[in-house]
Amino acid sequence: MKRSLGPQTLVYPLPVYLVGSYAENDRPNIMTAAWGGICCSEPPCLAVSVRKSRLTYAAVQARKAFTISVPPARLTAEADFAGLASGRDCDKFARLKLTPVRSELVDAPYVGECPLVLELALLHSLDLGSHVQFVGEIKDVKVEENCLDPAGKPDAAALDPLIYDGGGRQYFRYGEIAGKAFSTGKAFLSEQEFTCAHFLRPS
Amino acid sequence: MKRSLGPQTLVYPLPVYLVGSYAENDRPNIMTAAWGGICCSEPPCLAVSVRKSRLTYAAVQARKAFTISVPPARLTAEADFAGLASGRDCDKFARLKLTPVRSELVDAPYVGECPLVLELALLHSLDLGSHVQFVGEIKDVKVEENCLDPAGKPDAAALDPLIYDGGGRQYFRYGEIAGKAFSTGKAFLSEQEFTCAHFLRPS
Repeated sequence: MKRSLGPQTLVYPLPVYLVGSYAENDRPNIMTAAWGGICCSEPPCLAVSVRKSRLTYAAVQARKAFTISVPPARLTAEADFAGLASGRDCDKFARLKLTPVRSELVDAPYVGECPLVLELALLHSLDLGSHVQFVGEIKDVKVEENCLDPAGKPDAAALDPLIYDGGGRQYFRYGEIAGKAFSTGKAFLSEQEFTCAHFLRPS
Repeated sequence: MKRSLGPQTLVYPLPVYLVGSYAENDRPNIMTAAWGGICCSEPPCLAVSVRKSRLTYAAVQARKAFTISVPPARLTAEADFAGLASGRDCDKFARLKLTPVRSELVDAPYVGECPLVLELALLHSLDLGSHVQFVGEIKDVKVEENCLDPAGKPDAAALDPLIYDGGGRQYFRYGEIAGKAFSTGKAFLSEQEFTCAHFLRPS
């Protein structure tokens, strides 16, 4: 039996993104955002939503660029702080002892201590109400060498990314593997379908 | 030292959404999507991106509505299958022995077996290239009673939602709690700031 909770922004999982931008005078800033996700494959794009009152909003509009740094669990308190305080009141990089790294591809800084960062050029701004959704084209993804497996693929366990739980107002880490993608579902194919290339989405 | 992986759709975490819609003749259908997330607080909105070639694309455009059902880990294979097969080739609800429940709020079905579902009315369609992003206004969130804590709040561990790992082509479950949100970050406040209501974002 399901209970109706009314209209609200409740879904799982939610990300923990540190949105990097340059405020006035090239001052690097970050804010924590959970409203966002990948939104297109070609061109590769990510969307993140920001309130118009935020310092990050004006900065992204001015520079037409932002970064997404994905904090590991060891930076939980830092990520939480970056969502509590405004860059108008303090220099969050300095306060958190984090390193702003200037992107060579877009006009925005990323967090050196985060093992996964995306550099994005602003493509669209969509005013949705309380938030404006920034759609950015992903110009590059950079990953720490020690978070890549021997084949050069990113290792989620090593990246140790945070998950935001809005319902419980807390952060989670990743747990166990539940199954292989584009694989475990084949159990539901008939023998005939299994050998029919058409039936399966090209990987 | 970071390694550049080039422009690609790599970020953590990614969701596993079952997007529910009615195809022609009120035929209920689902597809699995990982490109999406919350995009606005007021009105509460969620965005999900779909290729124009998908049956779901035409269905959502026709009915101006969709649902998001969040599958628990015990439905990993079902969720994977719904991303492998097309509703043009088979009745996914029947094949997976899942129950299509007609929403009373929007013109779309959700998955009865999923402990968390969202019902959405289409607000915007944004053509981004390979994908069209559907922005839906969340009309209601429904949660299974046994996934609510005594205070009536959703319990992430009980919901047991999946996380898609695009880099590793696998699904993860939630793990341990990393910290309290809007709380653990206060460690970086000075004593003066800690008592200054202005400094902290209203919760």
